[in-house]
Amino acid sequence: MRERCSDPGVENPTAPTRPTIECWFDFASIYSYLSVMRIERECEPSGIAVDWQPFLLGPIFRSLGWTSSPFIAQQAKGNWAWIDMERQCAKYGLPWQRPSIFPQVALLPPRVALAARHEPWVGAFCRRLMQMNFAEAVDTASVQATRRALTELGLPADTIIEAAQAEPAKLALRVQTERAAAKGIFGAPTFFVDERMYWGNDRLDDALASLISRA
Amino acid sequence: MRERCSDPGVENPTAPTRPTIECWFDFASIYSYLSVMRIERECEPSGIAVDWQPFLLGPIFRSLGWTSSPFIAQQAKGNWAWIDMERQCAKYGLPWQRPSIFPQVALLPPRVALAARHEPWVGAFCRRLMQMNFAEAVDTASVQATRRALTELGLPADTIIEAAQAEPAKLALRVQTERAAAKGIFGAPTFFVDERMYWGNDRLDDALASLISRA
Repeated sequence: MRERCSDPGVENPTAPTRPTIECWFDFASIYSYLSVMRIERECEPSGIAVDWQPFLLGPIFRSLGWTSSPFIAQQAKGNWAWIDMERQCAKYGLPWQRPSIFPQVALLPPRVALAARHEPWVGAFCRRLMQMNFAEAVDTASVQATRRALTELGLPADTIIEAAQAEPAKLALRVQTERAAAKGIFGAPTFFVDERMYWGNDRLDDALASLISRA
Repeated sequence: MRERCSDPGVENPTAPTRPTIECWFDFASIYSYLSVMRIERECEPSGIAVDWQPFLLGPIFRSLGWTSSPFIAQQAKGNWAWIDMERQCAKYGLPWQRPSIFPQVALLPPRVALAARHEPWVGAFCRRLMQMNFAEAVDTASVQATRRALTELGLPADTIIEAAQAEPAKLALRVQTERAAAKGIFGAPTFFVDERMYWGNDRLDDALASLISRA
């Protein structure tokens, strides 16, 4: 996959003159996997920028009185979701292996991605962690997984991880998750085009179409 | 909309030699509205038959411990769903008016549709009732609504309604809803192509594509 944002001439990939889609996602969410993997390649032909917004779905589910993912709490829906993921990954040409732990709650990846959300490598980092979780059976809650992804991208892994484990990064993720709730987000992925919300990977195409039709 | 099944030469629209999609739906379900309105016109070019399977989602939700639709129980999701319905109806070219009562629990329409599910007029009847509920603010729980739809279709409304109000028709709908639960159905619409399940209007195109690819 080509990395559009790695163009060194792009200083700020979310400059206001460029059409932008906000991508709110949780690293543990199966349908977020589909969107995170495909959003930049879908946006590229139209010059749309992705504003990466990692957050945690867990606190939002808990505020609804749920103790886990609806795919765990509702067995029939969960059974179907695994079959659906196989089909959707085949449709989008994405690798897929059902994770042994679901949902895999990992705090370091979203802390790193949130701190790096304006960096040109954020998309590649998110895709790498998603692929580890949903196609390679890697334990993404381990520091090693994040270190490996950062190292593969040629980045100073230890420095980035140290910052992501410090209090300001932890606080930033809590604030981000409160922002998600305040925006009316109840699931992931969720997209925003200006103030218009689109829930689910199944609405990514509609969200992009609304941007393209205005261009 | 042209009524393919009204061809008097078609004795049994679900004859086994013809590729068939089962359409399990609830008259009160917003996403069922989208699928019921479009499924026959989507199937027509490929010669796919629709096997109409009306059922009640309420007992299935109650078995999950829910007292109402998730669009009522989860306010943020419900708020979004009304916006999404406006957009989806615009996309599919369907009329839309938010119903004053939601979910509108009406027993007569599914009892009539279940008894008529092999009749050539079943699709037209389902669309008419759906449109009354979701585009014309008609109280579809009233006997008058069903009578009007049947009369418009040139059918002996009183005879059909009398049969649908008798014990066997009531029992048939209870059995049908138990069949839905036994098949693993947890929402509506749900489609089956042979034993393969597809949940949601968003998967209708995938379900049809799987049938067409085998043809």
